[in-house]
Amino acid sequence: MRNLHGRLDLCAINTATLGHREPLDRTIDRIARAGFGGIAPWRREVEEGDVSQFARQIRALDLTVSGYCRSTCLPAATRAEFNANVEANRAAIRDAAVLGARCFVMVVGGIVPGSRDLDGARAQVTDGISMLMDTAREYGVPLALEPLHPMYAANRAVINTIAQAMTICETVDPDRSGLVGIAVDVYHCWWDPSLRASIAAAGKAGRITAYHVCDWLHDTHDMLLDRGMMGDGVIDLPAVRSCVEQAGYDGLVETEIFSAQNLWRRDPDEILAVCADRLQTVC
Amino acid sequence: MRNLHGRLDLCAINTATLGHREPLDRTIDRIARAGFGGIAPWRREVEEGDVSQFARQIRALDLTVSGYCRSTCLPAATRAEFNANVEANRAAIRDAAVLGARCFVMVVGGIVPGSRDLDGARAQVTDGISMLMDTAREYGVPLALEPLHPMYAANRAVINTIAQAMTICETVDPDRSGLVGIAVDVYHCWWDPSLRASIAAAGKAGRITAYHVCDWLHDTHDMLLDRGMMGDGVIDLPAVRSCVEQAGYDGLVETEIFSAQNLWRRDPDEILAVCADRLQTVC
Repeated sequence: MRNLHGRLDLCAINTATLGHREPLDRTIDRIARAGFGGIAPWRREVEEGDVSQFARQIRALDLTVSGYCRSTCLPAATRAEFNANVEANRAAIRDAAVLGARCFVMVVGGIVPGSRDLDGARAQVTDGISMLMDTAREYGVPLALEPLHPMYAANRAVINTIAQAMTICETVDPDRSGLVGIAVDVYHCWWDPSLRASIAAAGKAGRITAYHVCDWLHDTHDMLLDRGMMGDGVIDLPAVRSCVEQAGYDGLVETEIFSAQNLWRRDPDEILAVCADRLQTVC
Repeated sequence: MRNLHGRLDLCAINTATLGHREPLDRTIDRIARAGFGGIAPWRREVEEGDVSQFARQIRALDLTVSGYCRSTCLPAATRAEFNANVEANRAAIRDAAVLGARCFVMVVGGIVPGSRDLDGARAQVTDGISMLMDTAREYGVPLALEPLHPMYAANRAVINTIAQAMTICETVDPDRSGLVGIAVDVYHCWWDPSLRASIAAAGKAGRITAYHVCDWLHDTHDMLLDRGMMGDGVIDLPAVRSCVEQAGYDGLVETEIFSAQNLWRRDPDEILAVCADRLQTVC
């Protein structure tokens, strides 16, 4: 396993970690100034401005874009809506290419509101990803399917385990082109009894495209915005990173923390300083 | 699949559904009067009174005890604490026998607070269940391991899928004595991409010991107390029950709903009337 001490160049910050409280250009500057090697910006902030301008700023500061967050949800009540969702993702993949992103992070969407068709939503997701493969190839941006914690299966993502994401990858990309893989986020998968085996299998297939860290607080109060800083929770972070790296992952270690009541009330530079410390000491 | 219309005798009410707002003897009367065939009481209410008296009342009303809720958590920081937890479960299994319960529901406990040892907690759980097998045999009360939703892995139960529970069952009871099985609760497992296969495997081994229903609300607001009434959420309840019954389950269909902001504010008889309606029409 890589030693992260003194290696913030191997670490990235997902901008959500700072709470999206400032324009992206300021956030980019802060992250570069704090010494991180990478950044993962969100569409909501990129689309507010000029993607080419952000891309120039990021390159000038020698930051790697570890991922571009994130896909438009795929499942829809009508074929027209579904096609529009696919098209929105094509546009975002083009922006990901402009940014030089290592991957386009796909949070695939939940069950269509008012429906109980989990299988149908999952089938739509596989179809939609399959339809996006050409765009990924054209722009050279790998899709990173992010299995979300099962508590988000209804309203955010019907892909909920690494093994399930692997099945989709193998279905839409049997040749293992490198254009579709998995974003492994410890928050979503730490509980999985098959975690080690799933990571090993994904790595063997060259499918680990991103690695995200934060922590799961022992008593989590909110299903979305109560993630913990690395070291404050129950996840054995070195054990998971060891699995991921033994499976061949050599990309950036990206911090992504949604923490409305705690982190997002603190000064952005202070948050970055804590991230830098924890990445080097407990991850 | 059994038709539940006009068959409330096949249905049970877990007393938590009423919010634990009244003494157990009143709850027992209400559930019997509403026409249900079964009840699943909690230790907190049974242990407030005389278990033999409750057992007599339940028998006199011709109610089946579909399960006794629930185990003392097993994982502990010290061997002495762990042994005390096992002993507390032995005492509860004796009460389950007095009640004539079809099973003793085991919510096995989370990670030891302050620790990050998920594997260790899981190992303690397997050890503890193994130690309880003799008591289950002595009193003729099957243990029903309840896999809890992965969002409870840290603080409530480190068994999180049916497949994982099956592995433990097969480890502690390779001869399939009928003394340890699984409580399948739709709330905890509906999202599982392996659900059908896991239920089929558990059924084939004679391991489906209980079946609990409620619903998962599309936008769930609270991790513990925001379960939905059957029909109000996203779970395809007939599809799951069909799997469970095809796998050989012929026991009661038990309603267990924690709903602090909605159900528990309503009149207990009204709650029971809605349960009766939904069990017969949407489950």
